[in-house]
Amino acid sequence: MTQISDSAAWQSIGLGWQPSGQAVLSGALLELADRLDRCFVAMAGAWGAREFRFPAFVSAAELHRLDYFRSFPHLVTFPVCLDPDEPNLERFTGEPVTGGAVALTAIEPVREVLTPAACYHIYIHEQGRVFERAQHYTTRNTCFRRERYYAPLRRQWGFTMREIVCVGTLDEVKQFLATCRGQVEALLAATGVPVAWTAATDPFFQPARSAQYLAQRVNPTKTEAVFGDDLAIASVNLHQDHFGHTFDLSRDGAPSFSGCVAFGIERWLHAIVATHGFNPARWPSLARAAAPADQVASP
Amino acid sequence: MTQISDSAAWQSIGLGWQPSGQAVLSGALLELADRLDRCFVAMAGAWGAREFRFPAFVSAAELHRLDYFRSFPHLVTFPVCLDPDEPNLERFTGEPVTGGAVALTAIEPVREVLTPAACYHIYIHEQGRVFERAQHYTTRNTCFRRERYYAPLRRQWGFTMREIVCVGTLDEVKQFLATCRGQVEALLAATGVPVAWTAATDPFFQPARSAQYLAQRVNPTKTEAVFGDDLAIASVNLHQDHFGHTFDLSRDGAPSFSGCVAFGIERWLHAIVATHGFNPARWPSLARAAAPADQVASP
Repeated sequence: MTQISDSAAWQSIGLGWQPSGQAVLSGALLELADRLDRCFVAMAGAWGAREFRFPAFVSAAELHRLDYFRSFPHLVTFPVCLDPDEPNLERFTGEPVTGGAVALTAIEPVREVLTPAACYHIYIHEQGRVFERAQHYTTRNTCFRRERYYAPLRRQWGFTMREIVCVGTLDEVKQFLATCRGQVEALLAATGVPVAWTAATDPFFQPARSAQYLAQRVNPTKTEAVFGDDLAIASVNLHQDHFGHTFDLSRDGAPSFSGCVAFGIERWLHAIVATHGFNPARWPSLARAAAPADQVASP
Repeated sequence: MTQISDSAAWQSIGLGWQPSGQAVLSGALLELADRLDRCFVAMAGAWGAREFRFPAFVSAAELHRLDYFRSFPHLVTFPVCLDPDEPNLERFTGEPVTGGAVALTAIEPVREVLTPAACYHIYIHEQGRVFERAQHYTTRNTCFRRERYYAPLRRQWGFTMREIVCVGTLDEVKQFLATCRGQVEALLAATGVPVAWTAATDPFFQPARSAQYLAQRVNPTKTEAVFGDDLAIASVNLHQDHFGHTFDLSRDGAPSFSGCVAFGIERWLHAIVATHGFNPARWPSLARAAAPADQVASP
């Protein structure tokens, strides 16, 4: 195992770090990030998944329908603008920054949230649809989670998440997730990164009081691929009909089920470097894994 | 000219629109966006530019050194989190959203800004460096500007900006910008999109009171490629030694000069569809323009 705390070595492969909890990528590390994402896209392509590029913000009113703010108030980041009234802006320009912090004057109503997970956009975008067969989607987004501490690539305020999603019947979604897990295992084998698969729960606020947390404990629906002690680099998630019910996605007159597989791209970078070291020539090429794959399901 | 207000036709090529001022891309339009970006990357490649992927947020303290908040308080968006004190979060969960707006309780100090222009990250990242020759960079980011109204692809709260930057002597930067303008004209010819090149100024707050605005009026340093009446799809900018001076980038003992060429990707999508119509088979393939180019300058 490589000495992974060598910051000059990280810099040499293209990692920059901002203490606000955000990474800068360039050079070999940026190329590896893009190679990995092509592998995930190839995996999605095998399902005939439609790719979407969603914006940075999600409607707060839509997220509220999922009771998101009661479940994760500690994680959320809001985009905030100044009230555009000219005297208000003038007041702001007097001393806009003191001691490194912005001295906000009056702000506009806040109606959006910085994307907390890439796949929420999909259910919101598709709401009200009546499906006749299983649908597959893929999307990548920068996701934001406020944490008590940050660590480069492993725990960031902003990080990159790729997801592959199935909306269908319970059987279709279960079959999708089982097959995806096999696809992820094959990719992990190609990268040489060892993981342990473990049942997990989402990081709820006050979990003991959360009905959703208790439901996840009773009936585990999240399985994570964990590298090292505690770094979840991928997760396989069954949402039951939670999103189908909330956003009126239906099939044969009943709410659709859904499930997703999610990848934290910066964490994969960490796992590959920790496994293979700082010489990019020793990193897996992933050329075969990134090639367009055969369909795993007929559309 | 196509009837560009036909929303069903826009949807058929993969445009979704959120009234918050953000676009969703999929299908043919998403493919075109990626093809265009490959053209811009090829243009940067001809300069041997180093690619960086910067985070979503810029340090407010660093931006303040450019007097950004006095120049553009009306445009800026801040990322804001709740104070993580547990009673504060509990108070928030009582009624987090009312009438579509978030009911914020106490917030943490705000120290970051959502990226307003892609290239600021470069000067901040490189600060303090002493250069021996011209440096070239490229980066793409989602940029955020609060506006009084939005229009799909043309004027968005969040939009995608690709930039190519040169840091060097005044002569090197001027030569870079002149050559870039030729590269952009060649790409425009390949896309068939007609533009007019016009001198422009940045959208300062209270321009009549802004020394920077007045300086731009006296000595124009920004030239825009304008499609139709008023849609700037690319700009060529000479920064003089403004960033070199502020962030201590130097060359031969003096502050470096810098310049950039910037592309608004969603606006290029609009210009191509408005020019060629809604049938993707009639859009320019751009395959030649996206191929790795010969070096225009020896490194």
